[in-house]
Amino acid sequence: MNYKELYSNILKKKSFLCVGLDPNLALIPDFLKKVEYPLFEFNKAIIDSTIAFSVAYKPNVAFYEAEGYKGWLQLEMTIEYIRSKDPSVFIIADAKRGDIGNTAQRYVAAFFENMDCDAVTLAPYMGKDSIAPFLNYKDRWAVVLALTSNPSAVDFETSTLSNEKQLYRKVIETAMTWGTQDNTMFVVGATRPEKLAQIREYCPNHFLLVPGVGAQGGTLEEVVKYGMNHCCGLLVNISRGILFAWKEENSGFSDYDFAKAAAAAAETVAFEMQKFL
Amino acid sequence: MNYKELYSNILKKKSFLCVGLDPNLALIPDFLKKVEYPLFEFNKAIIDSTIAFSVAYKPNVAFYEAEGYKGWLQLEMTIEYIRSKDPSVFIIADAKRGDIGNTAQRYVAAFFENMDCDAVTLAPYMGKDSIAPFLNYKDRWAVVLALTSNPSAVDFETSTLSNEKQLYRKVIETAMTWGTQDNTMFVVGATRPEKLAQIREYCPNHFLLVPGVGAQGGTLEEVVKYGMNHCCGLLVNISRGILFAWKEENSGFSDYDFAKAAAAAAETVAFEMQKFL
Repeated sequence: MNYKELYSNILKKKSFLCVGLDPNLALIPDFLKKVEYPLFEFNKAIIDSTIAFSVAYKPNVAFYEAEGYKGWLQLEMTIEYIRSKDPSVFIIADAKRGDIGNTAQRYVAAFFENMDCDAVTLAPYMGKDSIAPFLNYKDRWAVVLALTSNPSAVDFETSTLSNEKQLYRKVIETAMTWGTQDNTMFVVGATRPEKLAQIREYCPNHFLLVPGVGAQGGTLEEVVKYGMNHCCGLLVNISRGILFAWKEENSGFSDYDFAKAAAAAAETVAFEMQKFL
Repeated sequence: MNYKELYSNILKKKSFLCVGLDPNLALIPDFLKKVEYPLFEFNKAIIDSTIAFSVAYKPNVAFYEAEGYKGWLQLEMTIEYIRSKDPSVFIIADAKRGDIGNTAQRYVAAFFENMDCDAVTLAPYMGKDSIAPFLNYKDRWAVVLALTSNPSAVDFETSTLSNEKQLYRKVIETAMTWGTQDNTMFVVGATRPEKLAQIREYCPNHFLLVPGVGAQGGTLEEVVKYGMNHCCGLLVNISRGILFAWKEENSGFSDYDFAKAAAAAAETVAFEMQKFL
């Protein structure tokens, strides 16, 4: 999928919601834990109930790896299932990979060839060698970590360099020279909205993948205010707030209704988003 | 395994060789491609023929993921096989993971609980949140990327900070405060030996995992000269130079003898290493 198609899907669905598929086995409903493929069955119900409100899904690979090879199989099944439901949905493997060229090529094989993902999240620490192999595939994307939403992003990402810029800015400015707005996005957390405004000064066009709305404290209003561009330019990811909506206090949903609760949560977010488009 | 046990194994085997298990399906002998578990069968023969000369194995997870869930199964089989051959061998999952706390915890489950790895390589970009969960397991290790062996390590790792230090130094000095020499190692490539000497000034005791000897141009002599400490403090990784030794010009080995060629290559390295211990 290219930039234009992604924007057109956002307009069609009136949503820039990305649902994070982080199906922690310990947190899914008990009645699902007994089936052969619990992560997949959980995801399937979540996808069915949220796909009308979502332009993207982002399975976080760690939650599948934690269940061994059967977990990896369920990751493959999940991606196939999303594709079968709606070929135009954008699928991001949240893998945060990053390795030298010949190894990066194997990750390309894993996520772009064996699995039909549109994008992979990548850690920039090792530099261009670890990102470039992902940019050689037409209509596939590298989603490069820039300024993440977690507290310890300040350990290194915001380190000030000798030229007064912070490291994450160097990452964005450098990676912008490796690819284009058609194959590169950046991860920028919602927890530091003032930084979004600064980033838009030197990176006006690229899509940003924004985690951290909800549980982590970021708000949709601020993300839109500081991060939206003329083609939306935002994919806002919500994971726990949708997957485990039924667990929230006074949600009114039982665990058997987890998918209904997810649908209601996704619809609420999409309704908010619609106002900004 | 703790620091003392690792050093004692090094003295016992008179080697600080780590064999990188990067079984690229395209490069293994043709006759093995037809079996059900080609990566595992290849690894098994390599392990059998090199375990006398190696204190550590480092499967690079990308090469297994590239083959889908059956690849992940073969990673599990490989780790189990190493354990069954020699419980004292140090196993490093070369995964270069790095994610926020609750996700990092799932990677801990994958590599320390479901698979019996001693260590995992980790990317430091996201800071302490992404490393700390791996430090809570007695006798397990976080192997933190510091200064890698690839050319584009200069893109970010060697960026000069406002305090004149380079980023990789800040990574080492900061991560040293999160863990101890009993649970933290650093990756430092053999391709910049002068940096090894500098690192030993502020990081004298920690083990370093050193890739880049051989194919990438680093030499064992220089790594030892600048990187060795009073407890060896080095695991030198060689992957292609051992796995695919039979492919080297005038190796004298056919593809049916790939394991013999690997044994000869590992023995030669171990023989060199012995002189330095």
